[in-house]
Amino acid sequence: MFSSLSTCLRTGRTYSSCAKLRIVAPPMVYITGEEMTRYAGNLYLRQWIEPHVDISQWEFYDLSCKSRDDTNDQVLYDCILAGKRIGSIYKEPTVTPTETQKKEMGLKKAWGSPNGLMRTGWNGITISRDTIHVPGMELGYKNPVLFDRHAVGGEYAAGYKIVGAGTASSIFTPANGNPPVIVDHRVLKDTCNAIVVYHNPYDNISQMAHHFFGRCLNAKVTPYVVTKKTVFKWQEELWRVMKDVFDAHYKKDFQDLGLLKNCGGELQHYLSDVASMQLVRWSHGGFGMCAHNYDGDVLTDEIAQIHRSPGFLTSVLNGINDNGSIIKEFEASHGTVTDMWKSHLRGEETSLNPLSMMEALLGAMSYSSQLYDVKEMAEFCEKLRSAIYSQMVIPGKATRDLSGPTGLTTEQFVEAVKDRFDGKESVHHKAVRIVGGSADQVDHEKILELFQVIDKNGDGLIDIEEFTNGLKKLAILPKKDGVKKIFE
Amino acid sequence: MFSSLSTCLRTGRTYSSCAKLRIVAPPMVYITGEEMTRYAGNLYLRQWIEPHVDISQWEFYDLSCKSRDDTNDQVLYDCILAGKRIGSIYKEPTVTPTETQKKEMGLKKAWGSPNGLMRTGWNGITISRDTIHVPGMELGYKNPVLFDRHAVGGEYAAGYKIVGAGTASSIFTPANGNPPVIVDHRVLKDTCNAIVVYHNPYDNISQMAHHFFGRCLNAKVTPYVVTKKTVFKWQEELWRVMKDVFDAHYKKDFQDLGLLKNCGGELQHYLSDVASMQLVRWSHGGFGMCAHNYDGDVLTDEIAQIHRSPGFLTSVLNGINDNGSIIKEFEASHGTVTDMWKSHLRGEETSLNPLSMMEALLGAMSYSSQLYDVKEMAEFCEKLRSAIYSQMVIPGKATRDLSGPTGLTTEQFVEAVKDRFDGKESVHHKAVRIVGGSADQVDHEKILELFQVIDKNGDGLIDIEEFTNGLKKLAILPKKDGVKKIFE
Repeated sequence: MFSSLSTCLRTGRTYSSCAKLRIVAPPMVYITGEEMTRYAGNLYLRQWIEPHVDISQWEFYDLSCKSRDDTNDQVLYDCILAGKRIGSIYKEPTVTPTETQKKEMGLKKAWGSPNGLMRTGWNGITISRDTIHVPGMELGYKNPVLFDRHAVGGEYAAGYKIVGAGTASSIFTPANGNPPVIVDHRVLKDTCNAIVVYHNPYDNISQMAHHFFGRCLNAKVTPYVVTKKTVFKWQEELWRVMKDVFDAHYKKDFQDLGLLKNCGGELQHYLSDVASMQLVRWSHGGFGMCAHNYDGDVLTDEIAQIHRSPGFLTSVLNGINDNGSIIKEFEASHGTVTDMWKSHLRGEETSLNPLSMMEALLGAMSYSSQLYDVKEMAEFCEKLRSAIYSQMVIPGKATRDLSGPTGLTTEQFVEAVKDRFDGKESVHHKAVRIVGGSADQVDHEKILELFQVIDKNGDGLIDIEEFTNGLKKLAILPKKDGVKKIFE
Repeated sequence: MFSSLSTCLRTGRTYSSCAKLRIVAPPMVYITGEEMTRYAGNLYLRQWIEPHVDISQWEFYDLSCKSRDDTNDQVLYDCILAGKRIGSIYKEPTVTPTETQKKEMGLKKAWGSPNGLMRTGWNGITISRDTIHVPGMELGYKNPVLFDRHAVGGEYAAGYKIVGAGTASSIFTPANGNPPVIVDHRVLKDTCNAIVVYHNPYDNISQMAHHFFGRCLNAKVTPYVVTKKTVFKWQEELWRVMKDVFDAHYKKDFQDLGLLKNCGGELQHYLSDVASMQLVRWSHGGFGMCAHNYDGDVLTDEIAQIHRSPGFLTSVLNGINDNGSIIKEFEASHGTVTDMWKSHLRGEETSLNPLSMMEALLGAMSYSSQLYDVKEMAEFCEKLRSAIYSQMVIPGKATRDLSGPTGLTTEQFVEAVKDRFDGKESVHHKAVRIVGGSADQVDHEKILELFQVIDKNGDGLIDIEEFTNGLKKLAILPKKDGVKKIFE
């Protein structure tokens, strides 16, 4: 069903030079997808990875619609088994075909999203979504924000019915032979109602707690637990278990690091609605949050946009293996970028920002290097990440989402990073903070207009008094005890 | 159980001068609470309202813990009946006593929050929370953001049990005699689970739609409906009804006003997680959102913080009367400000920002003037609002949350607005935009440091070239197609 070789042949890559490569990468599962991200993923592999790394121990699984259709989805089951065996997985974006796409591609079936099966197969505990920080790039949070979202339970697997007036009864029958208990009995008076039943399985909360607090400790950030437990009282259980784990295993370490000094020396709980406010207020970052499934869904998207966009957040599914080890699946946080793929097929230039995919791939490679203890691999990952980051902050020399229309194409960016990695790019441009725009996008008229507003006496020069008044007028006067963001 | 007179006596106010007052206010329900907001509410009434308005037709209900205890909560039921009869209600913040407070106050019972009974009694459809805009004050959203949150249903009234392994079955029995149907059947494998059952009553969705779209049309903002319906499929029903109402009654009007030009001429739906991102992106404002109960809870708090704080958002419960008329209850979005009350009791100075309470009171007075067609009353409200707003933007002359430690006390602010309203304050300070700080808080060292960074050749003057480079360095270079916020 799979093999590195067969995949090499399928994707047209050759591994002839494997023997000469310096670093032999430890095993990893590489899931290939399709469209623009498959095309770009292939470029990254060929140009950035393979010249330096022997990836012959990687197992490739093709989760394109065609491959799933050809194998009657056996490839998905194989890939889940491989993930359990190997522990570190990278997944390119895939397409979940609609009925229309099913017909267009001549599929036997509109294969569903693979995520549910993966989450179950790898015994998912949390989905981690953390802010990505590119040195020299102005982003929303100054310091890391970590998030763990319970990967199971809640309304995602709810049963429901749209019903008229009547009565609804819910009964729970214990497996231990104890008598049944009534969970809920209600009278519905409206002529149209949605009745909804779901459950939260809580056995893995202590594992989630260890995972989350361990990560926060490692990153030296202050942890917070988020629920709506004052109103949704069943959520008290999640808080109780997390607090117990924290107090027994982590409290002292966090205290010693001074990470609880702003929260009374104790683990703090925030209500979900209050958390949605703190995320806006705490732009300094340096905190972690752990929440139920749906709250995590909404709050991590809020974090993404405050930071810059979903592309600046990681996405890692953390599952637990039968032997207690952690399985990690790293994904890009975007889809297959269909529009760009269509442009590419029409022969037009494209400019795909590789950050989200590469952060995931480098994450998987690093985790694999940790699992199999291959230090050179971790070093390689850091070097490649650094080459990508430093290219991204050169004005006009990043992809066009950052540099505007004169930025580099998908292929030019790959080439530029390759040169940088290989040391051909000797001049390291000093990173200049830019507002996501290239020089020719600058509005010089606006600058002049602004200058004239500040240059009150109109002599073409701004002195310190005009400067101070100008800042006041622009409402960006620095204050002693709360300097506005841009001056920090 | 109530009367204006008895309340006057209880609160120590006198109505002896009623006969001389110019405007006779139409009926309104005024719910008094306790602690700091009761003290301040009394000041606002005595100093700002009563000198100009005869409030003898207002009905006062005292929802303090003591009053509820004394009347065995009859005062709450009476107040709900009065709300139905009169239609416009203002509520000061109240205390929901904890067990500790019950003992301290010597109450018979820890009386629960009155909100649930009010919501039911007034047949609540939505809770509206809109941004407040004070001219001359720099706030997060440039234009109004309107929000309507379904006031009933969802997890707030869920039934639940914490259970072990077993099976859960939910059955619905229609009132019309049709056979029972299975809503959900599930096997719970964990040793600890929360099982949750709730329903969304959907009969009032078309009323919510009319309310929401009518408000958006009136405010000339683009409406959006927010659910998680792609995953929580039962929510499709809410969207379907809202879309039907929109297409049949509102689409053309919105199109004619050009309010659908950025969304393909159609009503748009956003997923809740995407909405949490758009709220960050759309800082220009000028939109409305309508959502289920819990999504509305979380998203309106996000809006509050982006705009500035919950105090800059209104809070109005909209219910529907038996005759189809709308009942509106206006509240402040904060509590009784216990800390400040304790300071006040210790004889210390306090500085309560009246915005949230006064926006609610003026809202209730305006709505009452609309219900009973008393135009002079609406004009009075506008004039008083304007006096409060204009006082709030005078540097150093607002309350201390805005002006810093040298700002006015609670009582001084009341006095200043009173003088302003009466025309005694002849010098209208030109509104200067400030960053929440008084002049003496300005960090002059920081300004000089910044000036020197921009003044590259160090001649003590900034020319246009240095200015341009400086803006670049500060990452606030205005761009042609996406000028940064502060330059708009």
